[in-house]
Amino acid sequence: MNSNNHRIYLDNAATTPMDKAVVESMQDIYINHFGNPSSTYSYGREAKMQIELARKSVAKLLHVKANEIFFTSGGTESINTAVHMAIHDLGCKTIISSKIEHHASLHAIEAFSKKWNIPVHYVALTENGHIDLMDLERLIKASKDKTLVSLMHANNEIGNLLNIEKVGTLCKENNAIFLCDTVQTIAHYPIGLKENNIHFATGAAHKFHGPKGSGILFVNNEIKVQSWIKGGAQERNIRAGTENIAGIVGLAKALELALVNGEKNKEHILKLRKHFIKRIQSELPHISFNGDWDGDSLYCLLNLSIPFKPENNMLLMQLDMKGLCVSGGSACSSGATTGSHVIAEVYPNIKQNPLRISFSKFNTIEEIDKAVEILKELCN
Amino acid sequence: MNSNNHRIYLDNAATTPMDKAVVESMQDIYINHFGNPSSTYSYGREAKMQIELARKSVAKLLHVKANEIFFTSGGTESINTAVHMAIHDLGCKTIISSKIEHHASLHAIEAFSKKWNIPVHYVALTENGHIDLMDLERLIKASKDKTLVSLMHANNEIGNLLNIEKVGTLCKENNAIFLCDTVQTIAHYPIGLKENNIHFATGAAHKFHGPKGSGILFVNNEIKVQSWIKGGAQERNIRAGTENIAGIVGLAKALELALVNGEKNKEHILKLRKHFIKRIQSELPHISFNGDWDGDSLYCLLNLSIPFKPENNMLLMQLDMKGLCVSGGSACSSGATTGSHVIAEVYPNIKQNPLRISFSKFNTIEEIDKAVEILKELCN
Repeated sequence: MNSNNHRIYLDNAATTPMDKAVVESMQDIYINHFGNPSSTYSYGREAKMQIELARKSVAKLLHVKANEIFFTSGGTESINTAVHMAIHDLGCKTIISSKIEHHASLHAIEAFSKKWNIPVHYVALTENGHIDLMDLERLIKASKDKTLVSLMHANNEIGNLLNIEKVGTLCKENNAIFLCDTVQTIAHYPIGLKENNIHFATGAAHKFHGPKGSGILFVNNEIKVQSWIKGGAQERNIRAGTENIAGIVGLAKALELALVNGEKNKEHILKLRKHFIKRIQSELPHISFNGDWDGDSLYCLLNLSIPFKPENNMLLMQLDMKGLCVSGGSACSSGATTGSHVIAEVYPNIKQNPLRISFSKFNTIEEIDKAVEILKELCN
Repeated sequence: MNSNNHRIYLDNAATTPMDKAVVESMQDIYINHFGNPSSTYSYGREAKMQIELARKSVAKLLHVKANEIFFTSGGTESINTAVHMAIHDLGCKTIISSKIEHHASLHAIEAFSKKWNIPVHYVALTENGHIDLMDLERLIKASKDKTLVSLMHANNEIGNLLNIEKVGTLCKENNAIFLCDTVQTIAHYPIGLKENNIHFATGAAHKFHGPKGSGILFVNNEIKVQSWIKGGAQERNIRAGTENIAGIVGLAKALELALVNGEKNKEHILKLRKHFIKRIQSELPHISFNGDWDGDSLYCLLNLSIPFKPENNMLLMQLDMKGLCVSGGSACSSGATTGSHVIAEVYPNIKQNPLRISFSKFNTIEEIDKAVEILKELCN
């Protein structure tokens, strides 16, 4: 595909290459622990123990109780489950969310609110794409019913971070349920799920060098919920279906590697990000950055605003041909012909190409330099 | 746990040891194909291609179209999805099912019927646990509304096989939707999904030496459905969430190994089963078999009826101590304190211990002989 056969992967917000140690931990399960965790004999008990050890590890890393962690098939299932639980089990009759949530939230909320005939209020955004906290407060206070507030921690396209402390306090003061989509942040920050009064939080292993098809749902033990997917009694009756043991063990291993080495990874990634920004600003000054990139923003992501030129009509494809793997926005909607709903919402009047660059611990300064060179070739 | 350190695994209806070739196929994905299949650059397209090749392979093996195969997180999700689709998208207003379905069906039907206020009729059973086809016909014809008929192909506890040809014809003649839970049979028989007028069928890779956390949902392309899990546009808008590529590839590989070598495996397993039956009948004649074991029954399963003796109060645990891994019924309910709902339904007045023995291609005659010896020690 590219001249030097080395592809530069800078779309780590879409998915990440797996950590070798994670692959090995899963290999062990595939070979040595095939039992059905619900079976009572030795193979079953051994498999069950692998899951419970993983649950304890995840809980400890997130500073929550083991009985607050449930394993799912990924972030999307976690979000669908949480929205269903908030309505069906907790009696939420109003939803407050934003128009720049991930499609998993937007579409789940749309479907469930329609099914249960529940109004959805979308909070206003600030100029640079933050949730307008004054408007949020107004909406929460105006709601007469039990309310679900569903807002993501870090926007997956522009990286803006939510003030979860403030939102959690607002929810607590107004007896609202707080669902925080933490898919982009759970392995990157010590979130303080309990301290910030979060009721539901989400995670997907493949966003932090773990396997696809494995996610978590945090359910604060202050609330009582029932299963969304019905069937067997797995996950203490909260998520039916034979457990994906290898996926669960891989998720736990990946989260451990991410959080135990969190500061070191962050330092490395911040160095790459700063270097990239510096070079773009000096060598491609017509390119700006979307969102609150130099403020409250995810440290591993940047959203570039590239002036439109006819010859860059197929910019993503042109970058791909040069070996640079980046995206226009969320991967989950990149099959769609429409552009980014986040950029359209935050910058309705600006006709530029958004380009999301997201870094991981595996990226190097050399890759960043090469990426800048490729951008210079195409966007100069 | 046991004296000779060799455990005999005869609970292959609960789950199966993974095939080495399946583990290797997944390893390749973990290492070489980490891209998000929704991403448009090379890594994404390569990952997408792996999924579509798997889909084509599965479709070809099942003699259906590729656009009729959807990948899920397992059998339970597939069933929940199908029941939801039948009600929400196809307008089913009556459900006909049986009391001896797997809990995934029973509980999904219970929850959805309650939510949508839909009546559920349970078809009568014959003396040996078959679906009473006369009663089914009566129920289908008596239904004035669009009807969902949800019946499993092989009962997972007693092995009885449904006459899917007859049920499919009945459904077709009466314009009913036929959901056939084929989790126990999809890798064991050429089912003829289209020929038998099946609208929805299910599969779980871990039942045929594939990975846990990976399943399929067959949706006949005669019907039009929407997603149950909402979010991104994956699986042609029918199942949102980043695809579990390795799980999908592993499922396809496992199904290929199962069906391509189907006759050979069946022959081997039937030999084991016949040998086991012969020895039990001659050496433990007080043990009988539940269900239609010598008639229309799954060839890899037997359900033993063991006269109750006080010293066998903990029979499963005692067998486990001797190294024999078998179950009292479905693994998915083995954590529950209640006994088998299937046996209670089919044999309400018989107070015996049910013991499910289920074979796989990996079992040997020596293991069967050892299993009989252990049963003789404990149940003589």
